[in-house]
Amino acid sequence: MGDVTARIAEIVGERNLLTGDAVPEDYAHDESLTVGAAKPAYVAKPSTADEVSALLALAAEHEIPVTARGSGSGLSGAARPREDGLVVSFERMNAVLAIDTANQVAVVQPGVTLSELDEATREAGLAYTVYPGELSASVGGNVGTNAGGMRAVKYGVARHNIVGLQAVLPGGEVITTGGKTSKISSGYDLTQLIIGSEGTLALVTEVTVKLYPRLPHAATLLAPFGDLDQVMRAVPEIIASGLTPSILEYIDNLTMAAISYNEKLELGVPEEVRNATQAYLVVGLENRDGDRLDGDVQRAGELLGDLGASDVYVLDGGSARKLIEAREKAFWTAKAAGADDVIDVVVPRSEMPGFLAKARELAAAAEAGAIGCGHAGDGNVHLAIFCKDTEKRHKLLHGIFAVAVAVGGAISGEHGIGQAKKDHFLALEDPAKVALLRRIKQAFDPKGILNPDVLFD
Amino acid sequence: MGDVTARIAEIVGERNLLTGDAVPEDYAHDESLTVGAAKPAYVAKPSTADEVSALLALAAEHEIPVTARGSGSGLSGAARPREDGLVVSFERMNAVLAIDTANQVAVVQPGVTLSELDEATREAGLAYTVYPGELSASVGGNVGTNAGGMRAVKYGVARHNIVGLQAVLPGGEVITTGGKTSKISSGYDLTQLIIGSEGTLALVTEVTVKLYPRLPHAATLLAPFGDLDQVMRAVPEIIASGLTPSILEYIDNLTMAAISYNEKLELGVPEEVRNATQAYLVVGLENRDGDRLDGDVQRAGELLGDLGASDVYVLDGGSARKLIEAREKAFWTAKAAGADDVIDVVVPRSEMPGFLAKARELAAAAEAGAIGCGHAGDGNVHLAIFCKDTEKRHKLLHGIFAVAVAVGGAISGEHGIGQAKKDHFLALEDPAKVALLRRIKQAFDPKGILNPDVLFD
Repeated sequence: MGDVTARIAEIVGERNLLTGDAVPEDYAHDESLTVGAAKPAYVAKPSTADEVSALLALAAEHEIPVTARGSGSGLSGAARPREDGLVVSFERMNAVLAIDTANQVAVVQPGVTLSELDEATREAGLAYTVYPGELSASVGGNVGTNAGGMRAVKYGVARHNIVGLQAVLPGGEVITTGGKTSKISSGYDLTQLIIGSEGTLALVTEVTVKLYPRLPHAATLLAPFGDLDQVMRAVPEIIASGLTPSILEYIDNLTMAAISYNEKLELGVPEEVRNATQAYLVVGLENRDGDRLDGDVQRAGELLGDLGASDVYVLDGGSARKLIEAREKAFWTAKAAGADDVIDVVVPRSEMPGFLAKARELAAAAEAGAIGCGHAGDGNVHLAIFCKDTEKRHKLLHGIFAVAVAVGGAISGEHGIGQAKKDHFLALEDPAKVALLRRIKQAFDPKGILNPDVLFD
Repeated sequence: MGDVTARIAEIVGERNLLTGDAVPEDYAHDESLTVGAAKPAYVAKPSTADEVSALLALAAEHEIPVTARGSGSGLSGAARPREDGLVVSFERMNAVLAIDTANQVAVVQPGVTLSELDEATREAGLAYTVYPGELSASVGGNVGTNAGGMRAVKYGVARHNIVGLQAVLPGGEVITTGGKTSKISSGYDLTQLIIGSEGTLALVTEVTVKLYPRLPHAATLLAPFGDLDQVMRAVPEIIASGLTPSILEYIDNLTMAAISYNEKLELGVPEEVRNATQAYLVVGLENRDGDRLDGDVQRAGELLGDLGASDVYVLDGGSARKLIEAREKAFWTAKAAGADDVIDVVVPRSEMPGFLAKARELAAAAEAGAIGCGHAGDGNVHLAIFCKDTEKRHKLLHGIFAVAVAVGGAISGEHGIGQAKKDHFLALEDPAKVALLRRIKQAFDPKGILNPDVLFD
């Protein structure tokens, strides 16, 4: 171990290596509510792909488990290291290397945070449109979990916005995949394979992301509904309308009450309307032209009325921003309220009413709470689970995940499986597919050094 | 062999098996101009995934090379079988299983052609937006090559429009990947890995594709430019404008002359303008609102003028349709004109001027012709190569591909590597990456029975 320490220090420099008691608690976990902390033996902070390569070659030689870490804001325990392991922290690889306006891409190092990238692209009038609701999240983390967020309904998730990677294989080879083009048909798509692999296949050292023009005109509509089912039935109609909402969220009444209270939101919804509301739809619209936006807002308002909204509020800029921010903080609100887990099942959007009804039934039967909000346009349902008993909760989650899978959905839409949900994943997934995933893992990482506790046993 | 014949007949029924002299010439090749024909030993026409599974289990047992075939309209020789091999033809698996309007997806069997799917989605006001220019192409073929086409500039390529698969692994296991949702973060994305794998990883037996609303208002602008460079420099500006063109093609003057002559196009461009034109831009716009479309057409016209177009013609519906159809037939025009190969290099769109200049230099030095057109918005350059000498042509192609790779592009944007371009691919690609691709191939297909001559040696 002394030898390994010395060699890591050689690679990254002594000041960029932490070991033993000097490792801060932060590196022992991410934001998962259920995956406990584990302090790693080493934290190395490389500054180049070559350093990452040398670290991986060393780890392979000594079969040291390696966990990549961006900002540590993940929710599935994919950044929880092994106690005998090495955390490769990308905090020093946080440069925006290029904002390329002709190709509408940015090239960044993985440690760049979403707020840094937002700042860097603003002047060019462009934006990276993946907003998972946590601006301190890193682009590298977005790659690992295939991050989504509210704007995915219009712009897609990380998978649709990342066009090229530089990555280091567990043997130390540095490869590049994809590029500044959005179409390639020349061999298997390694970019797409690495996206969403939660640090189990390769360590990403450079990311090329798509940028979109920032549209100058935006509006937010809030529509209370007396019935959650009606909300869910409205969603496909809004998608089909061609209005192309940039945000299409549902928030149930308990969640709205909690985030309103926490964030001191004043949205102008009278108390008697609030009391008669089971859930809200939030519809974001944007346009490069103000008049067109006005036309769309009017049409969306009429449509929401036709679909059963008890009223429609066009929020002013300040209220809209506050509501979106409060919605983004729903995880923290749930955590503060004592939620025991937070999940993000995805189902076909037509299946949301049935799925939610069954999930609530299961929760009621377990005497547990399951309240939430979600990216309704994508069928991505976020539920805060209140159920102290670990065994009961595990059974409840298993039931909810099984319902989702049975209707053609999946356990996670954007948080990932990580360590938090892998037993459910392995139990519910087709064994032939799991065996294939393991062989793919083996193709990248024959010694199994990358995040050995994530996805698989 | 008698035994194998009998067992295939048992699986698919005697009338759905062809062997020996009964195998029509068609099954011996696709539309590649350079990959010669090879009559397979067997052609089986299964009607279910279970039959495909039984065929693959049998093929694995006897190590018989297997080539999947959709419509045979591919351009890279990925559907050219081995002489001792089995062609699995999906012509009988051509059912549209569901048009799901709530989730805006269609579920189809792989043998469905694009024109059949277009017909099936029309009534619901929806469309599958991958138009590779050959309506007889099959959806299964789209998956294999990651097909693109003119509308990719707005809607993306096959990869962005295919959300779920049912596929049979070479061992015979039937798996499903993805689903009716466009976001999932639950294990490696096998859908994306199989897309573009050219029949080397699995045989696809069911495809779930995204559908988009058909927009009722469309317009096509034709802009002649005196200088090809100017055309290429105009492209990023049009993309940045936010006009979101649904088509953004360039056509060089020789190609325009050829397709105009072949298809008897009359576009209203006066002879003196034609004579002073090096290349044309074709800009397609569409909108759900007629007034908005008119506004966009005006804005696009002004922008094209600012960018150096010598004039802008708004084509009437009939002329526009004819031009697009003629452009789609550019491959056949090139073939009829005696082209010796047709390639579809992709480069970052900002690199198109430099790439085209170098490609033309290389062609001139080889005393060869290289004329073309392309999906300019995607940096996807289609060149018809006129060069009879095989060795000289090989060297020229190698030079052109090397330039593309050097500027961050790839050998093929949408046709695939197949058998036609694999020696260039293997020579120009990073050996560490090729080794990884081979290990992934091995993870799916340990006996190497699926398309053994495609992508790899």
